[in-house]
This record gives sequence, C-alpha cells and structure tokens, in this order.
Amino acid sequence: MVILINFTEVGFMTKVFAYAIRKDEEPFLNEWKEAHKDIDVDYTDKLLTPETAKLAKGADGVVVYQQLDYTADTLQALADAGVTKMSLRNVGVDNIDMDKAKELGFQITNVPVYSPNAIAEHAAIQAARVLRQDKRMDEKMAKRDLRWAPTIGREVRDQVVGVVGTGHIGQVFMRIMEGFGAKVIAYDIFKNPELEKKGYYVDSLDDLYKQADVISLHVPDVPANVHMINDKSIAEMKDGVVIVNCSRGPLVDTDAVIRGLDSGKIFGFVMDTYEDEVGVFNKDWEGKEFPDKRLADLIDRPNVLVTPHTAFYTTHAVRNMVVKAFNNNLKLINGEKPDSPVTLNKNKF
Amino acid sequence: MVILINFTEVGFMTKVFAYAIRKDEEPFLNEWKEAHKDIDVDYTDKLLTPETAKLAKGADGVVVYQQLDYTADTLQALADAGVTKMSLRNVGVDNIDMDKAKELGFQITNVPVYSPNAIAEHAAIQAARVLRQDKRMDEKMAKRDLRWAPTIGREVRDQVVGVVGTGHIGQVFMRIMEGFGAKVIAYDIFKNPELEKKGYYVDSLDDLYKQADVISLHVPDVPANVHMINDKSIAEMKDGVVIVNCSRGPLVDTDAVIRGLDSGKIFGFVMDTYEDEVGVFNKDWEGKEFPDKRLADLIDRPNVLVTPHTAFYTTHAVRNMVVKAFNNNLKLINGEKPDSPVTLNKNKF
Repeated sequence: MVILINFTEVGFMTKVFAYAIRKDEEPFLNEWKEAHKDIDVDYTDKLLTPETAKLAKGADGVVVYQQLDYTADTLQALADAGVTKMSLRNVGVDNIDMDKAKELGFQITNVPVYSPNAIAEHAAIQAARVLRQDKRMDEKMAKRDLRWAPTIGREVRDQVVGVVGTGHIGQVFMRIMEGFGAKVIAYDIFKNPELEKKGYYVDSLDDLYKQADVISLHVPDVPANVHMINDKSIAEMKDGVVIVNCSRGPLVDTDAVIRGLDSGKIFGFVMDTYEDEVGVFNKDWEGKEFPDKRLADLIDRPNVLVTPHTAFYTTHAVRNMVVKAFNNNLKLINGEKPDSPVTLNKNKF
Repeated sequence: MVILINFTEVGFMTKVFAYAIRKDEEPFLNEWKEAHKDIDVDYTDKLLTPETAKLAKGADGVVVYQQLDYTADTLQALADAGVTKMSLRNVGVDNIDMDKAKELGFQITNVPVYSPNAIAEHAAIQAARVLRQDKRMDEKMAKRDLRWAPTIGREVRDQVVGVVGTGHIGQVFMRIMEGFGAKVIAYDIFKNPELEKKGYYVDSLDDLYKQADVISLHVPDVPANVHMINDKSIAEMKDGVVIVNCSRGPLVDTDAVIRGLDSGKIFGFVMDTYEDEVGVFNKDWEGKEFPDKRLADLIDRPNVLVTPHTAFYTTHAVRNMVVKAFNNNLKLINGEKPDSPVTLNKNKF
C-alpha cells in the first residue's frame, strides 16, 4: 500500500479519490477497483469541504455526491490540492458554484440516469399495494386481527392504468402494468412513435383522467406541470381513482388530494415525492417534533403510502451511480470524452 | 315485491335463496339479479343451519358458503323445506355430509377456480415488497425516521425467479415477473408444452433451488410436496433467497425457514398460508392471548410478510364466486348441466 502511494505521488499511477462513500456504495466501489487494478482508488466517508479537500492531494480526479454546496472555498481548496476533474455520482448540479468552477478550469461530469426501473418498479408495487388495501391488512396483522373481511383487494389486471409521461421511467412502468394484465393508456406532449403506433395515447389529459382507474405521473416539474393534479383535474377523474406520484412533488396540489381522500373520491395515494419535502425528507425525526402536520397526517392514513423520495434507491441504481461516476472520472483524467459532461452554466451562486 | 313473492309461491317464478352473504358480495349478487330479472333472488347474512333452513322454503335452489359443517340435520332440514339443489360459492366440499346428501338426492355444485390472478398478483407484490425492504421503510415512516439509508431495495428485474408449479396461478405469476424484467425459470413434474418450448423448465428442483433468487410455490399439498421447503432444500438455495408461499401451508417446514431467516441465508419470506393456520387465521385475536408464538414472531419480523390466507380475496374473485355459484344453481334448477358439479363421494362424516 505504501508503495502504491509512492508510485502515485511520483506520477506513475493514476489516482481517483472519492468523498462521502456510504456503506451501501462500498461493494460497487470495490467492484470498480477490482476491474481497474492499474488505478489507485482511495475514499472517505467525509463530505467534500474546504477542510477535507486536502485528502485528495495527489489524486488526478475526485468522485463526489452530497447535498452540501460545492462553494467557491471548497472548489478553491480542491484546486489548491491539484484536482479540477470532479465526477458527481448523482444528477443535480444546482449546489455547485459554477462561476468559480469555470474560473478554476474545472471539468465536471454527472450521472443523469441511475435506473429508470428502480422508480418504475416502486410506483407499480406501491400502486398495487394501495389497490390491494395491503396497509390496512398489515395493520390488522400487527394488532392480531387476522380476519380477512372487509379488507378486500382490487386486482391490477382489472384496472385501466393511465401513464402521464412516456419517457424511460413511464415506459418501464407501462410494461410492468401490462405484465399484470392491466389496460394501459398514456399521455405525453412528446409522443413516442412506437407507442403511438401501438395505440397507447389518448388525445388529452382530460381523456386520461376520465378513463383511468390508476394515474401515475412520470413527467418533469416544468412550470406547466406544477399542480397539474388539483381540484379541477381530480373532479374529472373516476370515483375510486388511485394517484401515484413518484416523480416530482410540485406536480401535485397536496391539499386537493387530501380533499379527494376525505370525500372518498380518491381510493388511495402513493407519494414518494412531496412539494414540501426539502428539509423534512431524509432526516430522522424520531423523538423530535415533526415539522409538517399535513405530511404526518398523510403518512398515518391507511390508504396512503408515503416514502421519503426513495423510489430511486436500489442496489442497481447505486451501482450505476458509483460505476458511471468512476468511469466518467477516468475518462476526464485520460483526456477522453466522458459519457455525461456537465456544462458550466450560471446557477444560484 | 309482494306480487313477485306470490308468483313464486304458486310456482310461476324460479327462486334462488342465498345464505351467509357478506357486504362485499352484495354488489355482485345485485349484478346477477339485475341480469336475471325473471328470477326471484333473496338472501340472508345467516349461515345455513337446521334452524335457518326454513328461510329457503319456496326456493328452487340455494347458494351457500360457510366453514360450518353441512350436517345430516342441516341437509334434512333443507330437504324438508323442499330444496335439494345446493351451489357452493367456494371450492371445498369437505364439510358436507355426503352420505346424507346422496340419500336425500342432493345435487351440488362448487366453484373450483375464482381468480388465479388474485393469488399470482399477491405473490408477486409481496415478493417485490420483501426485495424492496418495504416493511422496514414503512416502520421507519411510522416512527418518523425519514432517512433512506440503509434501507436499500433490490430490483425485481435483477432477480432470477424460480416458479415451482406451472398451473394457472404459476403461469400468471411468471407473466407478471417477466413484466418486471426478471429472468424466470420453472419446475413442474407436469410440463406445459408451450412453456417447455420456450425453455422455461430446469431439469430438477435442485437446479431451481441453486439458480433462483426468488422461489415461489404454486403446487398442491399432495403428500410428496409436504415440507418440500426444509433444511436440506434451503441449504441448496442461494444466499439471500426470498421464499414465497401463497399456495398451501404444509409445503413449508416453518421451523426450517425460521432457521434460515435467523442465519441470514434467507433474505425474506412471504407467507399467506401456514401449516398451523386452522383455528388461528380469519379470527380476531386483538386483546386476547394469541395462540401461536411462532406465528406471532414471524408476523413481527421486518423481512417477513404474513397475510391470513387472503391471497384469493379480491373483488374479481368474489364476483366469480357469487356469479358462478348463481349460474350453477340456475342450471341445476333448469335441469341443465352445471359448469362444475360435485361428485358425492365419501368424506369425513
């Protein structure tokens, strides 16, 4: 090990240093290391900060992933350690001071797609669970009420499933639902020619709302889509509709959904993303005052399944995040074109 | 309504009387009634007993479903009320005194298949939930721990799914798993020619145990299959296997599965049927002493999903149970051949 570090320091061996590596990422990091024995790979579980930047000294590039900002100070410290090739394991670049990165000559990559299936599978499983009234049955089991009636399930195959947005994730979701035997219809402003040929598309969102028993959102949160699920659209839907949002929180007017749940119009709701999730999701509130009463109410309802933006979180996705980031970083180091370079545009900084 | 009853009493109108109709059956009974306006349909929520048999007086046939025995006394009372055409809404006929039924000239039908999809969908959804570690995440949500790590999911598409038994239910399960993108292999002593042509079958159960990440049972509990999942077969399986039993309790040596769960060999277990379920399932034990410690332990494990033999329990299945039983009864009354007549063989009585 000492010998390897010496080689690296005198430039014989390419070195990649990774920050904030979690336990669940280690197997995939080791897999990459095993497949690249000529590369020196080292890592820490610490975040990248002005203080920890010096850990990367001697490396040719860094692999990173954090919610914490990559500030001007952090980027300067990293450049001072001799590193300006930075590969994100995730997609978001909002927390990078782009002006500073440009000034210091940084080259940055991200991983835009981890696993469409991770999200599509989660949406399908949760929708099926709501139809089946699984949460009520689980609660009965926990308190030792082992009677089956009246907790009767609806079969997926009997549903008309309406898919809003037919990108990577929407298409995988469609295939899963067809495997169950459901009738699938879809809407997208950008029609996929193959899906169009097969007759999946309805003419309008209104048509989809009117026909679907299950509605699953797989569209971005561009301004036109914000609160697309609202009192008006819910009123158009069938009685007993199931709404699934594993896409983006702002797509859904949460208060309108609660009104629909209260009236019985909505049979159940799957919520992996929430319009007010920032600062609440991915934190441990056990024993503390929970900051969002509306969210707490949703979590506790027997016909609502809330998860804290974890639809993406599978071994397959995490492997892709790690392996793709390391591959990108190596390409940057070797002067090759990485698979997903990030353009250094102006942002919040 | 009074007029209708009068017609029936003087024999102008065919009448069917149904026992033990539950709330969730009423919509389908009413649907059948609506489609058969020339038939007088009446019903009670009471079970069929020697005392309630007289409620059927004037009817041409009865539609029934109960765990309670159809004793000699009950059948005699029904015959005394003039009814010997009896259609079960379920499959099991073990609780009918067949000798007495034969003596009294009873004609009996049952419903052998309600909905293969009900069971296959449940098995698929529960298997996917175990892979995803959904129960752990649900428990975290309930206690307000909204961190996603380390509750990472395994995607269904990454699994080799081994299906034991390729009848109606097994085949639907295979199609669902393929919709997720899983690799499906199968074993059956009776090979389906079409599945064989497509190359699904492995040569032996041992081969299936060795290759499969998820193993789902869809075979009957004939003597050769009892405790087919045992210490020896579990030892042959891959580390981290998921075992699914939505078929029959006796197929699984529960103690062996518990040993596999304790050692970590088994990643998770789906149990809709249990070898000791009689007298425990479909009862409310809340606030009472729970009679089975082993079962309580399984229910409470975060990687085990127990349901009380409810895989069959969907609106689709219940509709079929009601509609098919009424159709059978009407055919008996009209002297036509019913879809599923019951041969009056000797049984426990």
